[in-house]
Amino acid sequence: MMQLKARLALELPGINRALVRAVETLPQPVRPVARHIFDAGGKRLRPLLTVMTARLLGYARDDIRDLAVTLEMLHAATLLHDDVLDNAMSRRGKPAAHTLFDVSSVILAGDALLAGANALVAARGDVRLTRCFSEATSRTAAGEILEIAAQRRVDGTNADYEDMVRGKTAWLIRAACEMGALAAGAEDGAVAAAAAYGENLGMAFQMVDDALDFAPESVTGKPTGGDVREGKLTPPLRRYRDGLDEAERAAFDAAFCAGMMTEADAADIAGRIRQQGHDEAVRRQAEEFLDVARRALENLPDRPERELMRQMADYVRDRKK
Amino acid sequence: MMQLKARLALELPGINRALVRAVETLPQPVRPVARHIFDAGGKRLRPLLTVMTARLLGYARDDIRDLAVTLEMLHAATLLHDDVLDNAMSRRGKPAAHTLFDVSSVILAGDALLAGANALVAARGDVRLTRCFSEATSRTAAGEILEIAAQRRVDGTNADYEDMVRGKTAWLIRAACEMGALAAGAEDGAVAAAAAYGENLGMAFQMVDDALDFAPESVTGKPTGGDVREGKLTPPLRRYRDGLDEAERAAFDAAFCAGMMTEADAADIAGRIRQQGHDEAVRRQAEEFLDVARRALENLPDRPERELMRQMADYVRDRKK
Repeated sequence: MMQLKARLALELPGINRALVRAVETLPQPVRPVARHIFDAGGKRLRPLLTVMTARLLGYARDDIRDLAVTLEMLHAATLLHDDVLDNAMSRRGKPAAHTLFDVSSVILAGDALLAGANALVAARGDVRLTRCFSEATSRTAAGEILEIAAQRRVDGTNADYEDMVRGKTAWLIRAACEMGALAAGAEDGAVAAAAAYGENLGMAFQMVDDALDFAPESVTGKPTGGDVREGKLTPPLRRYRDGLDEAERAAFDAAFCAGMMTEADAADIAGRIRQQGHDEAVRRQAEEFLDVARRALENLPDRPERELMRQMADYVRDRKK
Repeated sequence: MMQLKARLALELPGINRALVRAVETLPQPVRPVARHIFDAGGKRLRPLLTVMTARLLGYARDDIRDLAVTLEMLHAATLLHDDVLDNAMSRRGKPAAHTLFDVSSVILAGDALLAGANALVAARGDVRLTRCFSEATSRTAAGEILEIAAQRRVDGTNADYEDMVRGKTAWLIRAACEMGALAAGAEDGAVAAAAAYGENLGMAFQMVDDALDFAPESVTGKPTGGDVREGKLTPPLRRYRDGLDEAERAAFDAAFCAGMMTEADAADIAGRIRQQGHDEAVRRQAEEFLDVARRALENLPDRPERELMRQMADYVRDRKK
């Protein structure tokens, strides 16, 4: 794990410089909004995966970073639109963009980030990259739409949840790995292995995120049980609901579906979820996706980056915020 | 002109069928929003231009319509986001989408339309088409951002206005013609001529639109002087303002910049603009762009579609709504 952290620390400045260059390709008026969202932090997980996959498959040039940040731009675009949709007050511990800029600027900055990322990918002139990027854009939008459709409902199945997460989160992480492999000119088998690694890593990433939603705010820096209040029946919450007796469940459903859960309700439910171990159970469930991801790595070359990508799977499982 | 109308009537059903097919590639939950915006009408100017340019340059296959509608999808995406931004109550005489669907669905439907259009273009596997489409997306977003930045201000120059219109409106019409030429495999000179025709047609289209904003509602079906109330200093309004004496102008600026113009103010100003002939003067100004567009046509083959595209320039100048 130390190896992974050292490598990430080494890669990060180059990626952040590429992001600064990318922001400068955007229309002048949206740059402050874009800078705000990038300066608020973030793990840069997606560009790091693009760079590592490309290196693993033998791509040595520095310009990989300029490709890698296009998916971070797409990710930022979805965060900006999400914050407007959710009317969220904060993002990554800082004020949400639309509390600092007007809503119009934030929606248009999201559009400009998406358009700009698209243009940067198209400029490379590689049809496979363009298809991969546009597929990721479509799938992500579709996943977010499913998420909105499922909100404040308790009748979705586990399969519905997985479909939604595959779109909302996993596809973009998949595309990050796939684009790294495509940029390296890898053959189809390696591209498919990189894609499978990314998709399953992404599924696990979101499930752990859903578990972390119930961790104490003192640990994560985010309000506990936000998903309860937003009406998102994530796996830990579904497990909790499944364990309620009939009367309790009816009361839960009434408050949950009406969007009437208070901060106190959310904290109370989070406490019970931790006590009953539902968050840990979901982390174990995520481990199944990580196993698939690790097996996919076996079809990729045995080079140092492969070990780092294996450590990335451990990091996704163990992360505490 | 009869020729043009007959041809448009002939092309329209095929284009509308292609739009229906395109909507079916979108995630199920956004389809009703997409159908709403397409069913509300619209002239399908952009797809018609793509089809006509491709035909003019010798492309005979029917699949041109599936390419042509991607720019209508991008156009619809911007309309959906615009209506949310402007909080407009109606669009093309029907209720605006966000008055029928929730705001989240409308923003996400816009994102999905853009992503879906992008994917349809990428699927053709032609890098020049992908670049053209992504450039159009970026330029359009940039133009809209300039428009928002200029709102309720009186200090922009004529050049600022043209920059904004070139992005907001003209680039997409340019891309419609350019993509038709690219799909036909035209050589660079013909592609450039098609692009120049489209860009100048688009500039004129917007200026005539700005003039039409001051026509009586009984003629256009849209409230008169909407741009006055929205704080958009379009060319007819700029001419009117330039003609005011110092005291009148100070009063105008105060109300305009504060967003305090009432429906009665707008109607009153619209009446004066018509009386003073500023709307007609702007139509004549648009004619200069149309002359450039017509000259660009001279570099394209002498086939029936070229005559139709010349008639299209007359239609843009003369249209009454």
